Amino acid sequence: MKYVVNIILFEEFETLDVFGPVEIFGCLPDIFKLNFISLNGKTVSSTQNVKVETNKYEKKNDENTITFIPGGMGTREKINDKNLINFIQNIAVESEYIMSVCTGSALLAKTGLLDGKKATTNKRAFDWVAAQGKDVLWVRKSRWVNDGNIFTSSGVSAGIDMTLGFISELLGKEKAKEISNKIEYKWNEDKEWDPFAELYGLA
Amino acid sequence: MKYVVNIILFEEFETLDVFGPVEIFGCLPDIFKLNFISLNGKTVSSTQNVKVETNKYEKKNDENTITFIPGGMGTREKINDKNLINFIQNIAVESEYIMSVCTGSALLAKTGLLDGKKATTNKRAFDWVAAQGKDVLWVRKSRWVNDGNIFTSSGVSAGIDMTLGFISELLGKEKAKEISNKIEYKWNEDKEWDPFAELYGLA
Repeated sequence: MKYVVNIILFEEFETLDVFGPVEIFGCLPDIFKLNFISLNGKTVSSTQNVKVETNKYEKKNDENTITFIPGGMGTREKINDKNLINFIQNIAVESEYIMSVCTGSALLAKTGLLDGKKATTNKRAFDWVAAQGKDVLWVRKSRWVNDGNIFTSSGVSAGIDMTLGFISELLGKEKAKEISNKIEYKWNEDKEWDPFAELYGLA
Repeated sequence: MKYVVNIILFEEFETLDVFGPVEIFGCLPDIFKLNFISLNGKTVSSTQNVKVETNKYEKKNDENTITFIPGGMGTREKINDKNLINFIQNIAVESEYIMSVCTGSALLAKTGLLDGKKATTNKRAFDWVAAQGKDVLWVRKSRWVNDGNIFTSSGVSAGIDMTLGFISELLGKEKAKEISNKIEYKWNEDKEWDPFAELYGLA
């Protein structure tokens, strides 16, 4: 095992933001260990009524970690939750990689870690997210964006494409294709492919 | 609320088989109520280590229900679990609609409810699944299949396309497109689209 993926859950997270990427990481159990965490380590519910058990966060010194932040309706309130923002910040700064899906980038922006970096987000909620990080270089049209060790994706299902893109960067494109074929998924492998930017008036 | 969707979980279910369709149903909370159930009503783990709380099944007389059966590595053992097969059968026969994703159709085949009906499944595991229901009219090339009130899909991510197809049948194509746009998903709306049948030597 090479990386622990710390998946930060909060009330009213969006189901597929989390479980699309989890499916991809889960295809490589020798490389990624999935760890669902929350502030209090209890059960957390998604907007779609999925009740998931979580752990408290414990950093072990010899672990390489990835911090994963989903979006969802819960982010509307959580951007003002200083405990959660500090929690995310503390975990993310210790990580080798940071990833967010959809409006999860609003929470990540609130930590300041996106300042001066390129990032994207949900295309329907773009203006609201962008207002949470005025020093972020928001990209209006892109399926996902990679700046240094930070990966951010467009809305919901884009997290699947981004995670395959991440696998491609880390382990090669063949590995990403192998996984997408295994789950019978047609990977949108071109970051620039983003018909939803146009649909929602951003391009 | 018009339908309770009873999602049958078992140990080692495949994460995205469940949570892709759950994301789609979850976009219409006024029409679908999601109810995660299992034989014992306790926490159930997916192969990707997602621990989900479930309920015991209770049929209420005035409810319309949909029975939903995911696939996953757990099905290899569960085809021989008579308690689970009876559980699925009893719930499914009372339902307005029955849906399975991926190797979930092996469990459904074991109930006998697919006999004489057209159905499909995971394309990598096709022969193994087909052997579980010799009187089923297995379709080798199709993203998903609909025969009467039964919908069956190909592997993992195909469950998303099938569920959008189901929404399209029930509520019209515009509603299915609205949901796919909301979650920034490019719906493969043609049932006949199935490049994985060819990839895995079935077409």
